[in-house]
Amino acid sequence: MTGSFQPADPNYRENVDAIFSRAAFIRELGIELRDFGAGWCETSLKLQPRHLQQDGFAHAGVVATMADHTAGASGASLVPEGSVVLTVEYKINLLRPAVGDSLRCRARVLRAGRRIIVSESEVFVSKEGVEKLVAKATVTLAVVEL
Amino acid sequence: MTGSFQPADPNYRENVDAIFSRAAFIRELGIELRDFGAGWCETSLKLQPRHLQQDGFAHAGVVATMADHTAGASGASLVPEGSVVLTVEYKINLLRPAVGDSLRCRARVLRAGRRIIVSESEVFVSKEGVEKLVAKATVTLAVVEL
Amino acid sequence: MTGSFQPADPNYRENVDAIFSRAAFIRELGIELRDFGAGWCETSLKLQPRHLQQDGFAHAGVVATMADHTAGASGASLVPEGSVVLTVEYKINLLRPAVGDSLRCRARVLRAGRRIIVSESEVFVSKEGVEKLVAKATVTLAVVEL
Amino acid sequence: MTGSFQPADPNYRENVDAIFSRAAFIRELGIELRDFGAGWCETSLKLQPRHLQQDGFAHAGVVATMADHTAGASGASLVPEGSVVLTVEYKINLLRPAVGDSLRCRARVLRAGRRIIVSESEVFVSKEGVEKLVAKATVTLAVVEL
Repeated sequence: MTGSFQPADPNYRENVDAIFSRAAFIRELGIELRDFGAGWCETSLKLQPRHLQQDGFAHAGVVATMADHTAGASGASLVPEGSVVLTVEYKINLLRPAVGDSLRCRARVLRAGRRIIVSESEVFVSKEGVEKLVAKATVTLAVVEL
Repeated sequence: MTGSFQPADPNYRENVDAIFSRAAFIRELGIELRDFGAGWCETSLKLQPRHLQQDGFAHAGVVATMADHTAGASGASLVPEGSVVLTVEYKINLLRPAVGDSLRCRARVLRAGRRIIVSESEVFVSKEGVEKLVAKATVTLAVVEL
Repeated sequence: MTGSFQPADPNYRENVDAIFSRAAFIRELGIELRDFGAGWCETSLKLQPRHLQQDGFAHAGVVATMADHTAGASGASLVPEGSVVLTVEYKINLLRPAVGDSLRCRARVLRAGRRIIVSESEVFVSKEGVEKLVAKATVTLAVVEL
Repeated sequence: MTGSFQPADPNYRENVDAIFSRAAFIRELGIELRDFGAGWCETSLKLQPRHLQQDGFAHAGVVATMADHTAGASGASLVPEGSVVLTVEYKINLLRPAVGDSLRCRARVLRAGRRIIVSESEVFVSKEGVEKLVAKATVTLAVVEL
């Protein structure tokens, strides 16, 4: 449905790596890059007490940061050398309380234009080996020359 | 346009306070409750290096967490005793890079239904005494009995 | 990922049919129900000059109405007898100009709660036998007792 | 909060007029341009039976088309000569059933960048002379050279 994508920059793997290694807030949260390719990215996060909200499940802000950043990385895999992506906007639906041991996020590009890239992310919680979809986000990214 | 609201629970101030004191992730980020009333809430955050993304400004996840949580608090001020609000979904537009010393968020309820409350948030960055609007969010909350 | 769904009302097929036959604006636009089941729905629309905007492609309002209504029908297939769904909010990304002969929309439920159902829709344009994804929407529905 | 805007094109009034006179679907619905200036626009619509959905109030598609198109016009008032705006995405919350005689929409620009403009719209229903807010939308527009 969304086709396959070709990276525009032969060094795209370094660019995506840098989005994670250089983003202080992502390291602070503990979000880890698991795998990625042209047009997609996957991350994970081991849940800790500091990630929770007042009712004991992962705060929407944690889930959404993961959804947004992973979507950004999926888009960043497709931009030409010297360009980066910035989040213009996103929308996220929190489908179930995120109660469990860890989160996994999978993002893929829906449409890669020259100036706008649209990606979507799904976030899953894992509890005792069973995964459930807890959130779905759609993210609009601007391609910006440095 | 949105009218004024009456709190349904005489102890609503304690409920809103608890949303901040009991949310680990909000304390972790450093988001502070400044002021609130029936149908509105205001928060602030002193920006620190750990809040930034790879290009040096506040991560969208920080801005969005503030927008979502403050909107949730504005809604929580209106629910009956024994009920809480949960974020069903939100959408946020990041209007400008958030570069500065601190963030301020102001949320207000647009519509308070019995089961659904809709709030909107504006986030401002302050740099050398000048404030700029950096994000606007719309947040849909479910009113849930405990 | 989203699992399969069981209809709660044995007469769910009549309820979904009625959403189309009784909605004046949907008949006015010419949106047709093609097929549906528990948790999904598919519609089509033959594009006519009256559906266009100022640059010659289908107006976002036409595409969005189709995405919203089809998502609503996917959700309506799952509600108990005596309940209907109402759109609380939706978000739609217009991925490409919709230039062609007809539109097709496919909606599926992401999460069916007792009070809230979340569906997503994809809209495709068909031109000379080739289909392209032109829009993706996420729709939040409230389950309301009549 | 959003400041005042200066039009970039001295003929901006003709451009905004054209968005309404040349959009077949807008004429088809009956949406009328009431007034506009640099960074804002206001429209109205007399509700007719063909605008309704299955429960007897204005279809979300009618309300959303009005919100999107009016937001687009508010953005179009600010683009340079030879550029147009296209809707990248929007999100709309339907706050109350739209039951009444007519709709009024007011849109204003939140942020006008060189390539992206973000506007918001409020839609009101009027019934026996009393207006109520029925929807709020946030619209992301791309500025595109012809």
